[in-house]
Amino acid sequence: MEWKPDKAGETPLYLQIKDYIKNKIETGQWTVGMKIPSQRKLAERFEVNRSTVVTAFDELIAEGLLERKSGKGTRVKNNTWSLFSEQPPPDWSSYVKKSIHIPNLPTVQDIHKAEPLPHIIRLGTGEPSPELFPREMMARVLKRLPSRIRSLGYEEEKGLYPLREQLSAYMKTLGISVSPSSILIVSGALQALQLISVGLLRRGSTVLLEKPSYLSSLNVFPSSGIRLFGLPMDATGLQLLALRKHRKRQNASLLYTNPTFHNPTGTVMPVEKRKLLLKICEEEQLPVVEDDVYRELWLDSPPPKPLKAMDNNGSVLYIGSFSKALSPGLRIGWIAGSETVIDRLADIKMQTDYGSSSLSQWAAAEWLSSGLYAEHLGQMRSSLRDRRDLAEELLRTEFEGIAEWVKPAGGFYVWLRLPQGLSLRELFEDALKAGILLNPGHLYDGDDDCHLRLSYAYASVSDMRKGMAKLAGLIRGLASRR
Amino acid sequence: MEWKPDKAGETPLYLQIKDYIKNKIETGQWTVGMKIPSQRKLAERFEVNRSTVVTAFDELIAEGLLERKSGKGTRVKNNTWSLFSEQPPPDWSSYVKKSIHIPNLPTVQDIHKAEPLPHIIRLGTGEPSPELFPREMMARVLKRLPSRIRSLGYEEEKGLYPLREQLSAYMKTLGISVSPSSILIVSGALQALQLISVGLLRRGSTVLLEKPSYLSSLNVFPSSGIRLFGLPMDATGLQLLALRKHRKRQNASLLYTNPTFHNPTGTVMPVEKRKLLLKICEEEQLPVVEDDVYRELWLDSPPPKPLKAMDNNGSVLYIGSFSKALSPGLRIGWIAGSETVIDRLADIKMQTDYGSSSLSQWAAAEWLSSGLYAEHLGQMRSSLRDRRDLAEELLRTEFEGIAEWVKPAGGFYVWLRLPQGLSLRELFEDALKAGILLNPGHLYDGDDDCHLRLSYAYASVSDMRKGMAKLAGLIRGLASRR
Ligand SMILES: Cc1ncc(COP(=O)(O)O)c(C=O)c1O
Ligand SMILES: Cc1ncc(COP(=O)(O)O)c(C=O)c1O
Repeated sequence: MEWKPDKAGETPLYLQIKDYIKNKIETGQWTVGMKIPSQRKLAERFEVNRSTVVTAFDELIAEGLLERKSGKGTRVKNNTWSLFSEQPPPDWSSYVKKSIHIPNLPTVQDIHKAEPLPHIIRLGTGEPSPELFPREMMARVLKRLPSRIRSLGYEEEKGLYPLREQLSAYMKTLGISVSPSSILIVSGALQALQLISVGLLRRGSTVLLEKPSYLSSLNVFPSSGIRLFGLPMDATGLQLLALRKHRKRQNASLLYTNPTFHNPTGTVMPVEKRKLLLKICEEEQLPVVEDDVYRELWLDSPPPKPLKAMDNNGSVLYIGSFSKALSPGLRIGWIAGSETVIDRLADIKMQTDYGSSSLSQWAAAEWLSSGLYAEHLGQMRSSLRDRRDLAEELLRTEFEGIAEWVKPAGGFYVWLRLPQGLSLRELFEDALKAGILLNPGHLYDGDDDCHLRLSYAYASVSDMRKGMAKLAGLIRGLASRR
Repeated sequence: MEWKPDKAGETPLYLQIKDYIKNKIETGQWTVGMKIPSQRKLAERFEVNRSTVVTAFDELIAEGLLERKSGKGTRVKNNTWSLFSEQPPPDWSSYVKKSIHIPNLPTVQDIHKAEPLPHIIRLGTGEPSPELFPREMMARVLKRLPSRIRSLGYEEEKGLYPLREQLSAYMKTLGISVSPSSILIVSGALQALQLISVGLLRRGSTVLLEKPSYLSSLNVFPSSGIRLFGLPMDATGLQLLALRKHRKRQNASLLYTNPTFHNPTGTVMPVEKRKLLLKICEEEQLPVVEDDVYRELWLDSPPPKPLKAMDNNGSVLYIGSFSKALSPGLRIGWIAGSETVIDRLADIKMQTDYGSSSLSQWAAAEWLSSGLYAEHLGQMRSSLRDRRDLAEELLRTEFEGIAEWVKPAGGFYVWLRLPQGLSLRELFEDALKAGILLNPGHLYDGDDDCHLRLSYAYASVSDMRKGMAKLAGLIRGLASRR
């Protein structure tokens, strides 16, 4: 998608590349001092031989624009302007390094970089496949919007009222009673977590969560000086004894939990355990954030009611999202709970981005009010069930003896256990070279060294077949070399 | 829009209200210990006599659910569940108070609360009037989307490629050379600032900016421990001598500036001064954030090129947005600049909300590629010019002798200077009671006590006439009472 040299053009490729780089430098997009992408990376990106990039680099070095330091890669030395001036540009990389927010984990960065590549088979991606996108229904929704939308202004603090009204009615079907004033619309569940990190917690506090957990793959909480402390899990979710123990020992301020089709393990907490969990949290006065973004994606039978449905005193903050069951690109999620909290988070949301896209909010409201969302969920479950069954079949045929797993009852994921001692870093790299993108377990639990999070939601069915077979081969190869 | 008692219903109003409050309490939306809205506020919200609310409160107090403490308002004492249990719920308000982000300024909160009220005349609001919303064109854009959108997934880190490509071409028309990889799509210019605060700056650093400034009305930077230091302005924007002096004295890390149709003063910096400004910043190695969201809203003649167009070494980060010239509800803005910075902010954006609404991004791309945006800008300028001229006329006829101002050449605002010694807080309150919402100058400069930011962009033409006349009356009244 980015610029590539024109192979049919008259100008030699190396000259096109040289001009491209020169322009990047002259316009300050590549600032003096900046380390530029390696020759190998650029050759890949431009789809040319590495020697072509080398030639371009050599000329730019000769002209004084680039410099190569052994072991340190190639940097921008001058731009045509700086040759006349005394002042180097701002040292952006030191700005970046010293600033507040912690970068994504390196593997997460690698994944984000690899995702847009063509032909890559994404076996771990946590979003519904483009194949599952309800194009025709979305077209119907979009068609109705012009008659609804009189103007697209800044919305009320808590979000578009008609959407909050729809969500209030929708949550009633889940057993949750909240009026629109106790709901805040956010740009996806992730933003709910981000707002909670700066709007409810203080620096130095501790959040309990499952180990492994989706939340551990992000540096949102640590960037605000909040510590994450993982609780062990079993087949029914987080262990309650550990919860009680660590609430005190860690002086924890909050429990973050994802009790329904847990990411990454697929676990569902049974109803009796939910009740006990709530009881403990009430006794311990430990507030709970319930992340429930996979709820609608049950494949065998509906899951137990949310914790929030059993919460009578306002201990639970509930997070929902349209990302997993409908489309991540809407970027619409919501938080429901005590009005004290909702008012607070709404205030911060107004200082963060003045509210979520009104267009998306109108679309989401229309999905709900038209009944199309409910209709879509039926189709989604059925397609996802087929995919889950296919994954199960492929695992049984291809992964016999090299992996263990539990067949998930909903959500997107299989938490695949591999033989101890296999290097998951190596597997990740080898797979990437073979065109397969994986989500290794250490993203969700820094101590993990033997799991993959497989997703049956994203890759096309034919890619899934191809990819799983290749993956099994790679694992067998690595295992035999141990 | 929120719940109101049904005046035609059979159940007495006070009982309906009692049930409503009881439900709020029983479902934990109003948690035990929470201070609930005052009787006066609730009476307003429900559109009933205060005595009706008083009756409902009295019964709830008798039942042990509410308690009134003199001087401290009314609080939730119990809920039907807590009568059986020992444990009070989490103390949410102490969570809120001790957490990281600084709340909005009280007046900003008041404004956000008042904005959705019906019949309010908003004389300070910084967004285009619903009257200016290009409904017909937006319908055309929406109609084309289904054929463009194959799926709405999580986008690439920097945002939808076709939109970045369009923006790259659009910025070329402003004299700015940036390729799509040097552009990050954000959810409005505000989010650009939020990302800069945590992604480029460190705690304890200082940002220089105009005094007054839009940015001072928000606690985004202070919440990250970053200090804002205001530079004096004159009729051509910030004063350069002050810039040089305070760069050193304050050991400033960044200059934030809004040189084109400045919010709130309307000032435009002339081209020669822009060059000097850049020269100083280069000499001082002081990076610049150029907030250029009002650029397209010139009314007499196009403004000078952006600073970014004269920036050869990558010192300037450029911020644009569709909010002011098209629609805030799209929540689409962008940052362009050094790739080191763009990569960094993209990484944090992925940890904040996984990218902006794809639906909005597709719509924005379509606005640009179809040529409708350019067409709309022509119409927008012409309507806004009429509004500006009307404001000028009203000011000349109504505000003679009680205010001073400079006729703005673009943007939304008139920076109205009132006689010293008038209480702006009083004016704000009186105006609100009279159904007029104002933006007092102290939002943009904590020391200001004699300006209003008037906007000719939002109120309908008839409301503008009515509102300005009333406002002049209020000011004369206050002035005569001094
Ligand atoms: C458990 C969980 N919570 C939240 C999210 C974020 O989703 P959204 O797209 O709604 O921000 C994800 C997505 O990966 C998730 O798995
Ligand atoms: C100078 C300036 N910058 C940024 C913004 C934020 O605009 P957006 O809606 O793009 O976030 C505003 C809006 O009030 C503004 O006046």
